[in-house]
Amino acid sequence: MTPRIVPARIGYGGDYNPEQWPREVWDDDYAAFKLAGIDTVTVGVFAWAHLEPAEHAYDFSTLDAIVARAADEGMRIVPATPSGAMPPWLARKYPDACRVDFEGRRHVYGQRHNACPSSSDFRRAAVALAKRLALRYGDNPSVVAWHIGNEFGGACWCSNCADAFRGWLRERYGSLDRLNDAWNTTFWSHTFTEWTQIEPPNALSEHWRGPDHTAFQGITLDYKRFMSDQLLQGFLAEKAAVREHSPDVPVTTNMMGLYQPVDYHRWAPHLDFASWDNYPPEDRSSTRTAARMALAHRLMRGLRDGEPFWVMEQTPSVTASRDVNPVKRPGVLRLWSWQSVANGADAVLYFQLRQSRGACEKYHGAVLDHAGRTDTRLFREVAELGDEFARIGDALLGGRTPARAALLVDWDSWWAVEMSDGPNRNVRYLDVLTAYHRALWQANVPLDVVPVTADLSGYDVVVAPLLHMVKGDLADRVTALVERGGAFVTTALSGRVDEDDNAFPADVPGPFASLLGLRVEETDAQQPDVANPVTLFGAEYDARHVFEVVVPDDAEVLGAYGADFYAGTPAVTRAARGRGHAWYVATLLDDAGVAAVVRAALAEHGLIGPLGDVPD
Amino acid sequence: MTPRIVPARIGYGGDYNPEQWPREVWDDDYAAFKLAGIDTVTVGVFAWAHLEPAEHAYDFSTLDAIVARAADEGMRIVPATPSGAMPPWLARKYPDACRVDFEGRRHVYGQRHNACPSSSDFRRAAVALAKRLALRYGDNPSVVAWHIGNEFGGACWCSNCADAFRGWLRERYGSLDRLNDAWNTTFWSHTFTEWTQIEPPNALSEHWRGPDHTAFQGITLDYKRFMSDQLLQGFLAEKAAVREHSPDVPVTTNMMGLYQPVDYHRWAPHLDFASWDNYPPEDRSSTRTAARMALAHRLMRGLRDGEPFWVMEQTPSVTASRDVNPVKRPGVLRLWSWQSVANGADAVLYFQLRQSRGACEKYHGAVLDHAGRTDTRLFREVAELGDEFARIGDALLGGRTPARAALLVDWDSWWAVEMSDGPNRNVRYLDVLTAYHRALWQANVPLDVVPVTADLSGYDVVVAPLLHMVKGDLADRVTALVERGGAFVTTALSGRVDEDDNAFPADVPGPFASLLGLRVEETDAQQPDVANPVTLFGAEYDARHVFEVVVPDDAEVLGAYGADFYAGTPAVTRAARGRGHAWYVATLLDDAGVAAVVRAALAEHGLIGPLGDVPD
Amino acid sequence: MTPRIVPARIGYGGDYNPEQWPREVWDDDYAAFKLAGIDTVTVGVFAWAHLEPAEHAYDFSTLDAIVARAADEGMRIVPATPSGAMPPWLARKYPDACRVDFEGRRHVYGQRHNACPSSSDFRRAAVALAKRLALRYGDNPSVVAWHIGNEFGGACWCSNCADAFRGWLRERYGSLDRLNDAWNTTFWSHTFTEWTQIEPPNALSEHWRGPDHTAFQGITLDYKRFMSDQLLQGFLAEKAAVREHSPDVPVTTNMMGLYQPVDYHRWAPHLDFASWDNYPPEDRSSTRTAARMALAHRLMRGLRDGEPFWVMEQTPSVTASRDVNPVKRPGVLRLWSWQSVANGADAVLYFQLRQSRGACEKYHGAVLDHAGRTDTRLFREVAELGDEFARIGDALLGGRTPARAALLVDWDSWWAVEMSDGPNRNVRYLDVLTAYHRALWQANVPLDVVPVTADLSGYDVVVAPLLHMVKGDLADRVTALVERGGAFVTTALSGRVDEDDNAFPADVPGPFASLLGLRVEETDAQQPDVANPVTLFGAEYDARHVFEVVVPDDAEVLGAYGADFYAGTPAVTRAARGRGHAWYVATLLDDAGVAAVVRAALAEHGLIGPLGDVPD
Ligand SMILES: [Zn+2]
Ligand SMILES: [Zn+2]
Ligand SMILES: [Zn+2]
Repeated sequence: MTPRIVPARIGYGGDYNPEQWPREVWDDDYAAFKLAGIDTVTVGVFAWAHLEPAEHAYDFSTLDAIVARAADEGMRIVPATPSGAMPPWLARKYPDACRVDFEGRRHVYGQRHNACPSSSDFRRAAVALAKRLALRYGDNPSVVAWHIGNEFGGACWCSNCADAFRGWLRERYGSLDRLNDAWNTTFWSHTFTEWTQIEPPNALSEHWRGPDHTAFQGITLDYKRFMSDQLLQGFLAEKAAVREHSPDVPVTTNMMGLYQPVDYHRWAPHLDFASWDNYPPEDRSSTRTAARMALAHRLMRGLRDGEPFWVMEQTPSVTASRDVNPVKRPGVLRLWSWQSVANGADAVLYFQLRQSRGACEKYHGAVLDHAGRTDTRLFREVAELGDEFARIGDALLGGRTPARAALLVDWDSWWAVEMSDGPNRNVRYLDVLTAYHRALWQANVPLDVVPVTADLSGYDVVVAPLLHMVKGDLADRVTALVERGGAFVTTALSGRVDEDDNAFPADVPGPFASLLGLRVEETDAQQPDVANPVTLFGAEYDARHVFEVVVPDDAEVLGAYGADFYAGTPAVTRAARGRGHAWYVATLLDDAGVAAVVRAALAEHGLIGPLGDVPD
Repeated sequence: MTPRIVPARIGYGGDYNPEQWPREVWDDDYAAFKLAGIDTVTVGVFAWAHLEPAEHAYDFSTLDAIVARAADEGMRIVPATPSGAMPPWLARKYPDACRVDFEGRRHVYGQRHNACPSSSDFRRAAVALAKRLALRYGDNPSVVAWHIGNEFGGACWCSNCADAFRGWLRERYGSLDRLNDAWNTTFWSHTFTEWTQIEPPNALSEHWRGPDHTAFQGITLDYKRFMSDQLLQGFLAEKAAVREHSPDVPVTTNMMGLYQPVDYHRWAPHLDFASWDNYPPEDRSSTRTAARMALAHRLMRGLRDGEPFWVMEQTPSVTASRDVNPVKRPGVLRLWSWQSVANGADAVLYFQLRQSRGACEKYHGAVLDHAGRTDTRLFREVAELGDEFARIGDALLGGRTPARAALLVDWDSWWAVEMSDGPNRNVRYLDVLTAYHRALWQANVPLDVVPVTADLSGYDVVVAPLLHMVKGDLADRVTALVERGGAFVTTALSGRVDEDDNAFPADVPGPFASLLGLRVEETDAQQPDVANPVTLFGAEYDARHVFEVVVPDDAEVLGAYGADFYAGTPAVTRAARGRGHAWYVATLLDDAGVAAVVRAALAEHGLIGPLGDVPD
Repeated sequence: MTPRIVPARIGYGGDYNPEQWPREVWDDDYAAFKLAGIDTVTVGVFAWAHLEPAEHAYDFSTLDAIVARAADEGMRIVPATPSGAMPPWLARKYPDACRVDFEGRRHVYGQRHNACPSSSDFRRAAVALAKRLALRYGDNPSVVAWHIGNEFGGACWCSNCADAFRGWLRERYGSLDRLNDAWNTTFWSHTFTEWTQIEPPNALSEHWRGPDHTAFQGITLDYKRFMSDQLLQGFLAEKAAVREHSPDVPVTTNMMGLYQPVDYHRWAPHLDFASWDNYPPEDRSSTRTAARMALAHRLMRGLRDGEPFWVMEQTPSVTASRDVNPVKRPGVLRLWSWQSVANGADAVLYFQLRQSRGACEKYHGAVLDHAGRTDTRLFREVAELGDEFARIGDALLGGRTPARAALLVDWDSWWAVEMSDGPNRNVRYLDVLTAYHRALWQANVPLDVVPVTADLSGYDVVVAPLLHMVKGDLADRVTALVERGGAFVTTALSGRVDEDDNAFPADVPGPFASLLGLRVEETDAQQPDVANPVTLFGAEYDARHVFEVVVPDDAEVLGAYGADFYAGTPAVTRAARGRGHAWYVATLLDDAGVAAVVRAALAEHGLIGPLGDVPD
């Protein structure tokens, strides 16, 4: 089920909260929307207190007016369920609707995105309201999609979540024996003999220096999986409520791209289409930002096997929540918006259409500023883009981007490698992932960004940096890829742990060792300012952070360390297997070094794209 | 009512806590005081446990002896109410006398300055003791002033404070409708439908990264106002108790100068005279420190319309609570003390007269060290200054400093601009305020530092950096100033919000836009290492942090940006209005740039002072 | 009682936890141990959950098998009591067995080393199990020593600890009057009138910016002393239980060398022999690391008057808990192990013999890696060292190192100087101690590192940096040392406070002033980047952080400051007393300056060792 976009064109518009200002202004709003070519509005995202000012006392009059006006104006409407921000009365009556934080503290009413996903009181209230919304607006022909909640994320450590976690564990492991084995509890006398002995891992139990520092990685890893699933249960409950009365309208929620706490691969099957909010961290290098956004777009597109997605939010000008909030330079809005479309977006929406009057987003950019002007640089750029989208019509809708190269992303590896004690806390999954992605992006190769469970049979080159955890039949699928002539490229710290985050009782890199034709005997780590020069294809690159000492079996040595006691030993290798090759980069290379490896692998398959040699 | 200083001379002395050491030492103390020309002692600041060792069991014997001896020795006596540090029995019996901190944690007994201002138990006990003190010492002719509590400050987030906050809000807003409008609660579904739903804003409710990061600026702003008022209630209750039995003795409390948490402008009408503790943050540049102290002195003097004030505390040598505590260099004590007098101080007192034996101030400097020596450099400098004060007699007492220039300080703007999300967290109110003040100070212009409610009719030049919030009739008064020939100088981020911290639904800078003859269309922000060169009066200055893109109406462009997409657009403007000018600096200039603007405005009015061109 | 090491040779082996992997692996383990010359195993350190899976339900079957196999293989066995890591059922049943942290938060089950030392529930369970272990294995002839708990340390702030603290204070002070005097409670109205008013000093009471920042140093100092004693009570209770059934086997626990929270001098009399875990903080300068380890070895040796000790743990390759975990370079393992022996170790053990499968130490190095390989560089180095140890036999066992020079270490001074408010938080006890030790180490003088209570009559040179607190008859013993011809070297910030951390009511440096022939009139402090050049013996050295302004009486001035208002005044002095000299360094000199002073004092006594002039 894909969102109904009729007439067929790229969706354009954004969050629209007219309940936050006087009705007199609505006319100005629509006049401006016309000028800007805006045809899509997301409504009601934060309207709970408006819609249900007291428990079970519903008041849809304002939203009725908003929806009616939007429909009259020919807008495509995306109604939201407002569960992203609960009303004060709910927190006051049901204190367990508020979360307990990582420090073990129960919160009281405030902010948003803070409902405990295990609170039955919160769930019941959210579902009841979702059902009523669906009943009221579900058959409105202007409604093109449902937007459940908002930016699901974060975590809770309350006793309800503890109970739910224990239930989740029972289901996952069946027995405490199996759980004790998975968590290696004989270490430090942790053998659990009753399910109730299990505590959520936080600052009061297993953690010692923050969320990444845990005494038992297995417990924390499972809590991350559980919490991602538990948040999903909230989404699913609301989706079911909506579906009941609005069976034909597709349902989504706005994801957050490269967002660590939620495993979107576990969510993807439950969305009717993917959508996400594009707020790249500020970065003066527009190339790096552009590459990072491309990765996020591709990750989102890869969630549902290449289907188009929506950019549900982006700011037209500035954010407000950063320490420093620069404005988008002239032309950037247009550039980034078209980049979204080129990567598979069927809609490009703004947060938001009119600027907030007060509170923490009053300086967040909007299509219309506090004065409501349409003679600003910002508004002109918005309107020009609206005009371009109108002119291109449906030409790009539903586009697919066939790719022979793939980049593997795995939330379990992301979590595992960043909470690992040893070898080096300065190794961050996103840093390495984005470095490899950037090399692929600069080579201009059509690329899929897919989970480790993806079918690899259509690819020639598969790149998998920091594939720390190896689950299921992945090693077999990778081996098959190589045997049939493909290239597999992986890096240091891959092949280290099984699905339970326990080390393989075998040579490193575990299930990949024989494919790669080597074993890793030692793993050195150094401070960020220490570089080891690696000679590769006749050039020299800096390696940092992690330096595996490799004992090659039949792998060909392509690059070697130039310093330290392992000078002269392999840093980059390639093993011939069947008709293909398995590449190993035993350290973290600088960008140029990563590019050299990636391009070599691509080149063997003729996959350097057009313009792939243009410098940044 | 001003403090009785008889015989008339600059008060000289300080905190004197002889209950902390054996009586044998008292003779040495007074022998030394004579040598040093000390004539004023503040007594009993931390004596609660001494005076009331158990609830309702009072023991004034030691304080009687201290006061009697001081009177015999001809000292002017400033008795304190000891509410700055509660005794252990009080905290044990009344746990709610201790504060709940920003993290939501109830504290137990310890430290000082930590009583909940909403605890009726604490208030009752403090008032009862204050009353007894007034009864006992109020008619002693040596008593020249009352010193209530000590350095009122900090904040509490307990349930008693929550209740008091709700009461304060009821009084301020009258109705929840008005409150919801003020706080813009439709944003993020915060509409409050019962007063009890309102929680104190802290780490468990609206705050997300510390005290400056709140989801609802309006709530946090009101909590700051409330807490400042609530602390004042504590002061007022004790003052009333004292006044009852000591009707003719003036009452003060020692303030802390440039202290963000308390709005001294709201306190000022309730003091009989102002006094403050001068502990400048360490700074190797003596010019910057001197300028900063001058600002603080002037702020204190400006509290009560130019009346003289007291320096209630300064260290004669070192502080102890800083990470690094350098000694005052030879002559600095004299220099800074005379600076106080030159800025309006009628008394210059030390903390303290004899050094503490143990605990956290045992290394804090004192007139007499642990060995009680009078042959030290420090003591000699103290004594020489005492001699100078004796010789100058009453020549400077009650002095006034007529000024045609004013600097506006506004706690509401201070609070609002520093808790704002966007545009730039690196903009700090004091940094900008001190930069503009330093330019005025270096130009050697007589200057008043006054609140935004001050009568501006006597000024030729009014400088108001970061006047973020515009309240009441301020814009009218400023316009009148300009119309009648004055100069008004303001900066980026001014004129942004109303009294509720909601954006004006108008062009920026709101109520000042037409006076300044421009509108601000965009506000760019950059990291601290990014400078944009601004050409102004033929010279070039660096601008940083915030760069407003200005569309001039009829303002004259004096300076322009030299870089970025807004290169060539106005950075500094001046609009002619009536017989005067309204100046706008649309960015944060470096010190030289600020000086260029300020001096140009002063020069038009002939206000560059003598020696105003001497370099630092 | 010293550990039975039969046959006599340097003990070699380490922690062995075969209950953590399948029995099939045990054969491989022992085959490898044979190859490596390993003859000692520590067993059961984390086996509580294994040994007592439910309260009072013991199961020794696995440990029986482990011990039997080890004995059969000829291993020397060191059984541990497993109280370092409690089982989940215990925490669940007895929540008060878990600690309350510095922030006042009760923890729940997790991690290790976290039992409240005042929990009678925990104590009872730990003792009962210790008793059963002793009964079962105490007469096994292969058992050479008992290992109580693991790395005792940390602290608890619960109400049981509060009660125990009050009891400890009653015993120490007898009366509240004496306690109030010791803590100088008249300062800030803290006079305690009931024992129950006393709260453990933490973030909710006396502390304001972390564990080093307290309002009442005396309270915090006593809490540190109490907690060190309270942890010792736990050790003693288990020791007594073990001794009951295993009267002839020596008992130890693994200490942590330069570990601030526990005063090992108070523990030493209760150990049958000392042992410690050697994990030096990573440091690229091997000389600095080597010197630091030497200091720690000597401190451990000095605990029991020069008796040999054991290195109970070291990693053969990498740690895991650091941010960055480099591998030991080739040869380093051998070098550091022999350094241990040279400093008095009779056994050198690893943590651990086989690498953990999962959780936070899965990447911590071990003699056998996850694959169990014996053909690695690491294993080869371990085996070569084992061979060397076997060959040297008993030649070095029980060695003593007579010394005429001593370095004084004092936990009270360490605690006091680092929690002091003023003069400079950048002064860290270990920095200064290691600087003076390094100078001694580089001079290659045989050196004892001893407590301030040590008999000084056998020494010619005694060096005591940062001897902030002077207790008991120390000043007399130091004076006697000097009178009979010895040299005493001390530094800035010495002689400041008495045993209660109250300033001496006398010239600084208190009891040392007349011995040193000077008084300190002022103490300046500066930021770390400010250096004052000190001319000494014709060379110039940088002084930093603290600069005492000295008024010499009859001390000879050896070095003087070159800058600031005290330029030309003494920085280094020497007073002739009797036949000896008392040296004073009134500031913190750079390494070369420290070496100049230390070598001058040593040289006068002919104590520069052989090779004492070899550069690093
Ligand atoms: Zn929860
Ligand atoms: Zn309170
Ligand atoms: Zn405890």
